[in-house]
Amino acid sequence: MYDCIIIGTGAAGISAALTLKARGKNFLLLGSPQLSAKINAAEKISNYPGLCAVSGEHLKEAFSSQLEAEGIEITSAQVTGVYDMGGHIGVLCGQQVYEAKSVILATGVEAVKPVVGELEFLGRGVSYCATCDGMLYKGKKIAVVCTSKSMEEEAEYLASLAAEVYFVPLYKDAELKSGNVHYIKDMPQAIEGNMRAERLVFRKTTLDVDGIFMLKSSMAPSALVPGLRSEGGHVAVDRQMRTNIDGVFAAGDCTGRPYQYAKAVGEGNIAAHTVCDFLAERK
Amino acid sequence: MYDCIIIGTGAAGISAALTLKARGKNFLLLGSPQLSAKINAAEKISNYPGLCAVSGEHLKEAFSSQLEAEGIEITSAQVTGVYDMGGHIGVLCGQQVYEAKSVILATGVEAVKPVVGELEFLGRGVSYCATCDGMLYKGKKIAVVCTSKSMEEEAEYLASLAAEVYFVPLYKDAELKSGNVHYIKDMPQAIEGNMRAERLVFRKTTLDVDGIFMLKSSMAPSALVPGLRSEGGHVAVDRQMRTNIDGVFAAGDCTGRPYQYAKAVGEGNIAAHTVCDFLAERK
Repeated sequence: MYDCIIIGTGAAGISAALTLKARGKNFLLLGSPQLSAKINAAEKISNYPGLCAVSGEHLKEAFSSQLEAEGIEITSAQVTGVYDMGGHIGVLCGQQVYEAKSVILATGVEAVKPVVGELEFLGRGVSYCATCDGMLYKGKKIAVVCTSKSMEEEAEYLASLAAEVYFVPLYKDAELKSGNVHYIKDMPQAIEGNMRAERLVFRKTTLDVDGIFMLKSSMAPSALVPGLRSEGGHVAVDRQMRTNIDGVFAAGDCTGRPYQYAKAVGEGNIAAHTVCDFLAERK
Repeated sequence: MYDCIIIGTGAAGISAALTLKARGKNFLLLGSPQLSAKINAAEKISNYPGLCAVSGEHLKEAFSSQLEAEGIEITSAQVTGVYDMGGHIGVLCGQQVYEAKSVILATGVEAVKPVVGELEFLGRGVSYCATCDGMLYKGKKIAVVCTSKSMEEEAEYLASLAAEVYFVPLYKDAELKSGNVHYIKDMPQAIEGNMRAERLVFRKTTLDVDGIFMLKSSMAPSALVPGLRSEGGHVAVDRQMRTNIDGVFAAGDCTGRPYQYAKAVGEGNIAAHTVCDFLAERK
């Protein structure tokens, strides 16, 4: 049982991790060795105090080497659900369940809006999780929509299972190694079907498939955590970064604007301190 | 008329300044070239994201050179009052008044508690402001209690006016150039008098004086801003860093715990964004 599980390796998650480490807590940091799609994409950040006119690449390197220096490991995992288990929290990553006394949601905001039909067919031919549902499509024909290079490993795994893959990367420089992959350079418009998803529709073409994977580097927290209160599309939190669920905290872009590194870093710090208070009260 | 005046050059004030600069606002940054007493004193900061195990001295240098690179100047001033002037804000620094559409309070927390009698005799022989009240003590005998090296210039100014100065530095390596200064290395216990302050009392000695200056690098915002709402000794703010006074925002340690660089930097960023929204609404 961990003291805390931090979900997300953007600026907020990293800030929370550094503070929990400094406070000697036993925690798990779930995310990607790439940290976040947003950091990698930033050209120049002019208002992050302490690092003058820093590039996203440089900031990412600074964060990565700091995590290493502090002995903080990132556990690569795609979180598929966060559940209040009565006194503790269960974090589901495909088949794996991690348990903790508290959770900090630092999942960022998903820049890509759901495609028409995506949410309707979720669980019926549409999946967010390669690890969870990949085996269902062994030997079949699938479409894989991928919003971030950090998710390519998941796409590669799906390509190793499926007979045929239509790969739809929504970023530049996409590259899969598998031979059974057709690249589609277009924006999906809709998902159609009857009882299940059957077709991925583009402006000029339509793909007939057995299943569609939407691989996103971050998921909407409201989709991850049943009962989580939202406000204007963001996780509702108080000044201590508490959500409406006991033991569940949030920080960074997922709690609202401004979408800024400094703001995310500040909220991660506050959330970690509130977790420490929460753990102390529970003892 | 400035768009905004930022009061304080700790982490919160610097973060707000970098963001207002990035947003092209016309603002004034009031503080000290030393930035803040707290930054200078920090030995090692293990949880500031992006700068690994950084010393306070290194962080201060990073902040200073970043301000310089971004063309942001610090105006050295001791703020003595912040007033709602009906549609805009007046910031009083001794004899000088600066006017702005908005103010960000980033004054930090005063670690030194008031001495017994200090608040009772404030304005009656006790002063916080060398520039405002120095002339009243020309040729007289005064005590100057100084909480931070960054305030030594104020003390020097007082020594140039007064006939005799008892100088009580509450930090190491104090050094005044004036010849009429007696150093006292002890903690003041109380201020006594009848209608006016007449004596500064230490554990074993008592000084008879005409006036007492308490030079502090930061003042309690509630003492600066009439009508400002406090909560538990801190400025009450919402998630957007708005105080109860229109056009007055706050960020950093003065808004409450945790007293952390990351938290201060985050709040300064949010406050600056809220100021931008506030200015846009006013147009």
